[in-house]
Amino acid sequence: MRLKFTKMHGLGNDFMVVDLVTQSYHLDEATVKKLADRNFGIGFDQLLIVEPPTSPDVDFTYRIFNADGSEVEQCGNGARCFARFVYDKRLTNKSEIQVSTSSGNITLQLQQNKEVTVDMGEPVLTPADIPFVADNFATEYSIDVDGQTLQVGAVSMGNPHCVLVVDSVDTADVERLGPLLESHPRFPQRVNVGFMEVVNRNEVNLRVYERGAGETLACGTGACAAVTSGQLRGLLDPGVKVNLPGGSLFIEWGGEGTTVKMTGPAARVFEGQIYL
Amino acid sequence: MRLKFTKMHGLGNDFMVVDLVTQSYHLDEATVKKLADRNFGIGFDQLLIVEPPTSPDVDFTYRIFNADGSEVEQCGNGARCFARFVYDKRLTNKSEIQVSTSSGNITLQLQQNKEVTVDMGEPVLTPADIPFVADNFATEYSIDVDGQTLQVGAVSMGNPHCVLVVDSVDTADVERLGPLLESHPRFPQRVNVGFMEVVNRNEVNLRVYERGAGETLACGTGACAAVTSGQLRGLLDPGVKVNLPGGSLFIEWGGEGTTVKMTGPAARVFEGQIYL
Repeated sequence: MRLKFTKMHGLGNDFMVVDLVTQSYHLDEATVKKLADRNFGIGFDQLLIVEPPTSPDVDFTYRIFNADGSEVEQCGNGARCFARFVYDKRLTNKSEIQVSTSSGNITLQLQQNKEVTVDMGEPVLTPADIPFVADNFATEYSIDVDGQTLQVGAVSMGNPHCVLVVDSVDTADVERLGPLLESHPRFPQRVNVGFMEVVNRNEVNLRVYERGAGETLACGTGACAAVTSGQLRGLLDPGVKVNLPGGSLFIEWGGEGTTVKMTGPAARVFEGQIYL
Repeated sequence: MRLKFTKMHGLGNDFMVVDLVTQSYHLDEATVKKLADRNFGIGFDQLLIVEPPTSPDVDFTYRIFNADGSEVEQCGNGARCFARFVYDKRLTNKSEIQVSTSSGNITLQLQQNKEVTVDMGEPVLTPADIPFVADNFATEYSIDVDGQTLQVGAVSMGNPHCVLVVDSVDTADVERLGPLLESHPRFPQRVNVGFMEVVNRNEVNLRVYERGAGETLACGTGACAAVTSGQLRGLLDPGVKVNLPGGSLFIEWGGEGTTVKMTGPAARVFEGQIYL
């Protein structure tokens, strides 16, 4: 049968987006893997599925699959594309939509300029919940890596993040420190590692070494974690532009007890149809 | 404007195919580069363009662009996809089509099973024309590499090839010998390097380290060069199945003075449209 899809990206993190509200198809793990192949298939980082709502308080169900066919819980870049997709395809006429994901409900807001704001939830700072091995919460922790003592922030945005402040992202030793911190024993579920250069109180440059994936073009939760940690360390104001290798995000956080809002672009690349 | 395209592959060598017979668009170098990007664009190894014939003795003009936007002369895997595309899109109803390329005219033949046979021309064996530094033609040459003396065949199929016979493609030292031979001083324009394991007189396994690209899934001219060299060395019969990492090709050669025929699959992956 024929399956229609849209190829999109958020700062270079690229997606195949499929409407399973007006189409019906069961995408099993083997098919997802085949579709994800960049030479033999369509090629994408994640597959985003739009499904009908499962409860009356949401507009859609949002499911996410990795290229290996496994289902995942969260993808900030994907959420922006999801919102732009359902709006452009006229599956809704609301500019603020409620979406259920496997890790809870999220709110997506389409801006006038077609950028999308995603409420990313509250950052988790309690060490045991990140999880990070430390006796008490601190804005910075000393951590020993390869004979060196580094100062890091530790934050969970649903996934664990370790944030280093560096003089320059161009000279930061991402290749060496990324893997060493990712598998550091004090992060028992491993960790995403952010290298943040503070440009001024409202702008940072950031590179993220992602857990299990290596350095990526743009990690949405990494941008949120970096800004949260930067504010807690007294380096940043509440609204911060984050420049990543794939482009920029705007992150807002009002401090403890409030949620982090991420605003950024969602681009349609092409429309496709494949016979399965 | 809207540009329709088809994504295809020949043994994993993947192509964006565009009909510029019924559509008109000028694809400049910057646009090709943008389209070739696998995250921000469509993603492909080469872009294949179908244009109207420029002379009455051919059916179409076939143009090929690399992902960097440069125009190239030949691509055997692409030629099979080209033939399948013009037939499936009903741009012709002939099963044998004549096509002009920037390096001359070629004949493409669609088989009953939808595989395509491409006449790849005569192999060039004269050392100076390959180019390869040797006094006279020989079926095998001794060549010194990193203190080792190897026996190689040297053939041009429009591009230069060096062919080694190995005990097993699984254990062949492609990573080390590939780059060393590619830039060996006896191949002044550098060379593609084939590692051929003879299974029997009608079947070989082959890995190819491509000039400027490293090891690839399936090199069509490499398969032709390997079979030509294997026949000249008395190891193979005229019709040979060549198993490459991306799949199999069937290569026929009747000996000196005749052309090499390559038969293999051409697969459509999906139909797309992009707004440029």
